[in-house]
Amino acid sequence: MLSDTALAAFRSALGGERVFDDAATRALYASDETPRRVDPDAVLFPGSHDDVVALVRVAVEHRVAITPRGAGSGNVGGALPSPGSVVVSFECMRWVKEFDPVNRLVVVEPGVVTEEIDRLARSAGLFYPPDPGSAAYSRIGGNLAMNAAGPRAVKYGVTRDYVLGLRAVTGTGEEICTGCRTTKGVTGYDLTRLLVGSGGTLALVTEATLKLLPAPEGVATLRVCFASNHAALEAVSRVMRQAVTPCALEFMDQHAIDAIRPTGAADDLPDGTRALLMVEADGRADDLPRQIEALEHALAGDGMLEMRSGFDRDAIAQLWAARRSLSHAVKRIAPLKLNEDVVVPVSALADFVDFIDHVAGAQRLPIVSFGHAGNGNLHVNVMVDPDDGDALARAHLALESIMLRVIALGGTLSGEHGIGTEKRKFVPLEIAPATLELMRAIKRQFDPHGLLNPGKLFPD
Amino acid sequence: MLSDTALAAFRSALGGERVFDDAATRALYASDETPRRVDPDAVLFPGSHDDVVALVRVAVEHRVAITPRGAGSGNVGGALPSPGSVVVSFECMRWVKEFDPVNRLVVVEPGVVTEEIDRLARSAGLFYPPDPGSAAYSRIGGNLAMNAAGPRAVKYGVTRDYVLGLRAVTGTGEEICTGCRTTKGVTGYDLTRLLVGSGGTLALVTEATLKLLPAPEGVATLRVCFASNHAALEAVSRVMRQAVTPCALEFMDQHAIDAIRPTGAADDLPDGTRALLMVEADGRADDLPRQIEALEHALAGDGMLEMRSGFDRDAIAQLWAARRSLSHAVKRIAPLKLNEDVVVPVSALADFVDFIDHVAGAQRLPIVSFGHAGNGNLHVNVMVDPDDGDALARAHLALESIMLRVIALGGTLSGEHGIGTEKRKFVPLEIAPATLELMRAIKRQFDPHGLLNPGKLFPD
Repeated sequence: MLSDTALAAFRSALGGERVFDDAATRALYASDETPRRVDPDAVLFPGSHDDVVALVRVAVEHRVAITPRGAGSGNVGGALPSPGSVVVSFECMRWVKEFDPVNRLVVVEPGVVTEEIDRLARSAGLFYPPDPGSAAYSRIGGNLAMNAAGPRAVKYGVTRDYVLGLRAVTGTGEEICTGCRTTKGVTGYDLTRLLVGSGGTLALVTEATLKLLPAPEGVATLRVCFASNHAALEAVSRVMRQAVTPCALEFMDQHAIDAIRPTGAADDLPDGTRALLMVEADGRADDLPRQIEALEHALAGDGMLEMRSGFDRDAIAQLWAARRSLSHAVKRIAPLKLNEDVVVPVSALADFVDFIDHVAGAQRLPIVSFGHAGNGNLHVNVMVDPDDGDALARAHLALESIMLRVIALGGTLSGEHGIGTEKRKFVPLEIAPATLELMRAIKRQFDPHGLLNPGKLFPD
Repeated sequence: MLSDTALAAFRSALGGERVFDDAATRALYASDETPRRVDPDAVLFPGSHDDVVALVRVAVEHRVAITPRGAGSGNVGGALPSPGSVVVSFECMRWVKEFDPVNRLVVVEPGVVTEEIDRLARSAGLFYPPDPGSAAYSRIGGNLAMNAAGPRAVKYGVTRDYVLGLRAVTGTGEEICTGCRTTKGVTGYDLTRLLVGSGGTLALVTEATLKLLPAPEGVATLRVCFASNHAALEAVSRVMRQAVTPCALEFMDQHAIDAIRPTGAADDLPDGTRALLMVEADGRADDLPRQIEALEHALAGDGMLEMRSGFDRDAIAQLWAARRSLSHAVKRIAPLKLNEDVVVPVSALADFVDFIDHVAGAQRLPIVSFGHAGNGNLHVNVMVDPDDGDALARAHLALESIMLRVIALGGTLSGEHGIGTEKRKFVPLEIAPATLELMRAIKRQFDPHGLLNPGKLFPD
């Protein structure tokens, strides 16, 4: 429990209006999108870089653990309060410090909402490519912590590819500045990308310099129905073997399709549809027909039932709203969603979903798969009633078989959600002891007292 | 000096045919492209990952420093032997371990020549974007060490952006495996990008998994002449403000133009040409005219004298051969080239070259500038006779003013050459003490005995 002295020290460092320890606030910050809850001892709301330096110094002096938090929209417990910690919420650090369209960059505080960055960029004919499903409410600080991505990653890459430099505060309260403001730079070690994806375990980011790109002129969308998962994912592999890279290549299996039915987006699917691809091309308006033609050519094949294009803006918006709703909508299938975010080589996707079907059958549980198939990145959700102990045990067995298969196929445990608390135990499947030990050693250099987001990312 | 016991231990670990300590071999490996020479104590030629593990273990036991080396084509002393070290040349580790066009990746040993990777990729309709000027002979291991780039970086990014994963040996002889084989992955810390650009100071890379892209169908080239550096670089800024990103945007000043005259590539320039841009677009053949038109529109402006397009393949090859020859050709101006590789924001380029002119005048020395202007990356070469002590002192003053201006403009010391031995003293201008200390602390985790490329990257 946070001592009265430590609490008073936080209040004196930040001002009383930035430190809350009442039960209601603590309960509000007790969870992220995982179904677990841990009340933090207090919640701090720094308003500036200097506030962050000040609060870390108090935390060091009183040995108080810190759980950094953006919007709390993560799926792996990254923002789940470490027991006995204070939550540091960045929602008051929400200012764009600089917008330089000529040099195509923006400097933001960690609490800026992801979508706001894209909106600002578009006001000058630019865009910010990373588009996690939660972009409408996620904070860029959380995106940096997990190296967030989204549908556009198949063409444009992930958060890591758009971070030029960072200002951050280490676990000793030291300020560090990494990277640069230009599109090239190789002075010293690349601490920028070391911090991106580190889940708030190395330093607290207080400012990020992000790269922007010229906005594509238009978008065209295809909805393609298939008779099986296998057929849909064979088509994905064909698409990724030809020259036109789509800006989205999203897969939904039968369960996912059922989950979006209430939105109306699945009303007109042909009979026998068991899997769906949403395929999008972007670029110049007069080039879209050519891209769509090339994509259609690659998508056509065994098991393809229908291919629709020419959606208007409203219909496209409805499709995407349905796709984005999935992460929450699948919870209707069963109260608990054990969510994985695995990646396998694109050429192995079709066999991988066959294996998932096999596991679902063997463990008698619904498993919902959807996601960014163009990157080989699937969100695999084992749905289970947490009050049914036997089913829960089978769910965990299912997860374990899936993880083992991912590694055997040359894949990785997480594509964009990170490890957090939820995937820690699987990390040794992918990372060998010597490499993991080096990561721990790096952690100790940034955070010698182990105060930054303890209990995350590393296995016990 | 290497002890007989250590030498015998290397021979016993690798076999006699992989260990040379004769004077001729040592002299062959005494330098890179910098004008300094240090004979190594021996040269080792490992043939496999296991050889590298074995030799590092011997080095640890006998506390022998290691200078890793690719082709020795670096410009900053990265492969200059550290005094009393053995050179580890990777030229025998030159095999492509795997080529997977379906998943768009290639797994290579560090001694593979950069251009061979591109050639292999093109055999399957793909390409490897990073194209350093030395690609015809540089080794991918050296490219990884310095995060090499080249003209195409303006559109496609740098080496860092194409590395999916690495296998490497740390300074304790431990094997580490980083990253993954898929285009997304966020399991554990990003050691991959930490190693890229670390100049062989953290680990010796023994295998790299590289990402490939679909090859563009065609290329079109513009040669644009300007009456001044300032006018040319204002045009660069205009190009980088509109939507068509060229795949090359190369600048040459008057000195650079004079240096390529012997190649014939400057024979037909209009009178009054003081600066040149080579601008290239790539993509579908039928889209190139549109791109060229957009680029021409952006390039036109004050001080533009001539814009030529429609070069045939031979003429384009001649232009590029001339451009690539520059790094060596400028040495005709004066025996010693103090080469910088600075980056400034694109919008600041024109003012920056005016400043360079001012410095050249004040210090009475020719300064040659050329390079990848679309990234704001210029190679600034102060030309001097090393036997003229006064001139040499002025050359160093010139360099220092230039570096200070780069930092004041929000730029960075190195865009693609790295720091090596030559830029170490400038590093504190860019990186603050706390950040630098963290880098040193990371170095100690990978290389606690300080055996990997000592005397590089960090200031004294």
